Amino acid sequence: MQSQDLQHFIDHGHQVYLPHVSIDCAVFGFHENELKILLLKWKHLNGWSLPGGYILRTEHADVAAHRLLKQRTGLDQVFLQQYHTFSGPGRNKIQDSSRAIETNYHVVIPEDNWLKERVVSIGYYALVEYSKVTNPQPDALTETCAWCDIHELPTLLFDHQEMISEALKALRAQLIHHPVGLNLLPKEFTMLELQRLYETILDTTLDRANFRKKLLGLKILKKTGERPSGKAHKTPHLYSFDKRQYAKALKNGISFS
Amino acid sequence: MQSQDLQHFIDHGHQVYLPHVSIDCAVFGFHENELKILLLKWKHLNGWSLPGGYILRTEHADVAAHRLLKQRTGLDQVFLQQYHTFSGPGRNKIQDSSRAIETNYHVVIPEDNWLKERVVSIGYYALVEYSKVTNPQPDALTETCAWCDIHELPTLLFDHQEMISEALKALRAQLIHHPVGLNLLPKEFTMLELQRLYETILDTTLDRANFRKKLLGLKILKKTGERPSGKAHKTPHLYSFDKRQYAKALKNGISFS
Repeated sequence: MQSQDLQHFIDHGHQVYLPHVSIDCAVFGFHENELKILLLKWKHLNGWSLPGGYILRTEHADVAAHRLLKQRTGLDQVFLQQYHTFSGPGRNKIQDSSRAIETNYHVVIPEDNWLKERVVSIGYYALVEYSKVTNPQPDALTETCAWCDIHELPTLLFDHQEMISEALKALRAQLIHHPVGLNLLPKEFTMLELQRLYETILDTTLDRANFRKKLLGLKILKKTGERPSGKAHKTPHLYSFDKRQYAKALKNGISFS
Repeated sequence: MQSQDLQHFIDHGHQVYLPHVSIDCAVFGFHENELKILLLKWKHLNGWSLPGGYILRTEHADVAAHRLLKQRTGLDQVFLQQYHTFSGPGRNKIQDSSRAIETNYHVVIPEDNWLKERVVSIGYYALVEYSKVTNPQPDALTETCAWCDIHELPTLLFDHQEMISEALKALRAQLIHHPVGLNLLPKEFTMLELQRLYETILDTTLDRANFRKKLLGLKILKKTGERPSGKAHKTPHLYSFDKRQYAKALKNGISFS
């Protein structure tokens, strides 16, 4: 960010963005049987955070979340779900991030500036296809944007550890009512890959026969093509989601428990 | 509200309350097999709204919700659940409510006053025992606070129709994972009364034997006392919740589907 742009943001940002409200996004991806989350390493602060930012004064929070995720991942039309708003008066996010601005850019932000005020943050989680996010982009205050394993999280800033825990809880609860997978798996996948995804999110093991029966019963899967002949008995079937049925199940709910 | 207090609220309220953020509460009660909701009839506006208000600058949104519900219902320790944050830039709540202040109190609120700014509202739903709310209190801008039948709602202001729909959806989803009833039924109740509560919330009919089996299987109920002798076969058992087991089920979740 140019220094004159930054000064303008400090002085006039509250006219463009809604003060006191931000969004933060827990972006989940699935890779090699691990659930990954997209995190940002901050410059001049010893830790990582979720991607997030302010909402334009004319913008719905959902639209802001899509805009910010497009900037980080390059992806349009990400599956996004609002899950919880974090409103603790002691959330020190803004104190810390304004301090990071001061250190990074050698500016002083007045104590009564909008960037130093309390912020309530609307939490979203997103499910994206890992392989499509090949070059995640940090923002002005961060130096790295990278996938991290959910079981080996680095030091997290602000209340983002809590945000991630709550996002995982919400994702697991969603799994019971709604199908998951369309945005986390490649276009074609085996039943075992789908089972591994469910097991990873639920952090448990599932019975193979029951899982297969349950998922086929939901009518959201279709077999793709033929199994190659020859060693056919060893080659697993490939499936893809029936997008119409999947959308219906997403809308009307399912029972998976 | 005295006119000098009001002028102080208009001029300095933003120093006490967090601007741009409010809460709104869908308070549900259960009475005569109907789900009721607590609504406020506005002075000088043709319609009703949910109870709500601003968050103190030092206050968690959850605490604000408890504070505001205590003012309306007189109840402490209400079961409250945050369910969704409403962030549409076109929510005209504040325009309308500031207009109601202007009409009620014959004051003019400047266009750039904090009360005329866009507000993002955090939605909560609450489950309360209908019989305990005997004298619900309107606030300064409203003339009546009353229970309304969920199937015969009056004209709703702002985006509160959507808020109620979403709160009902969230309550129904909660019902699948967590027990419901402790805050909606009297201390002792029959199995049929509990079934009617579930049926009312889910807006469906349930099989009596299955419901009974399911609920007893959750281990959250205990039988209270003996059935009177004589026409015992006609007198239904009374139950109450085992609060310890109920709390556990609330925390760990159940499967009711």
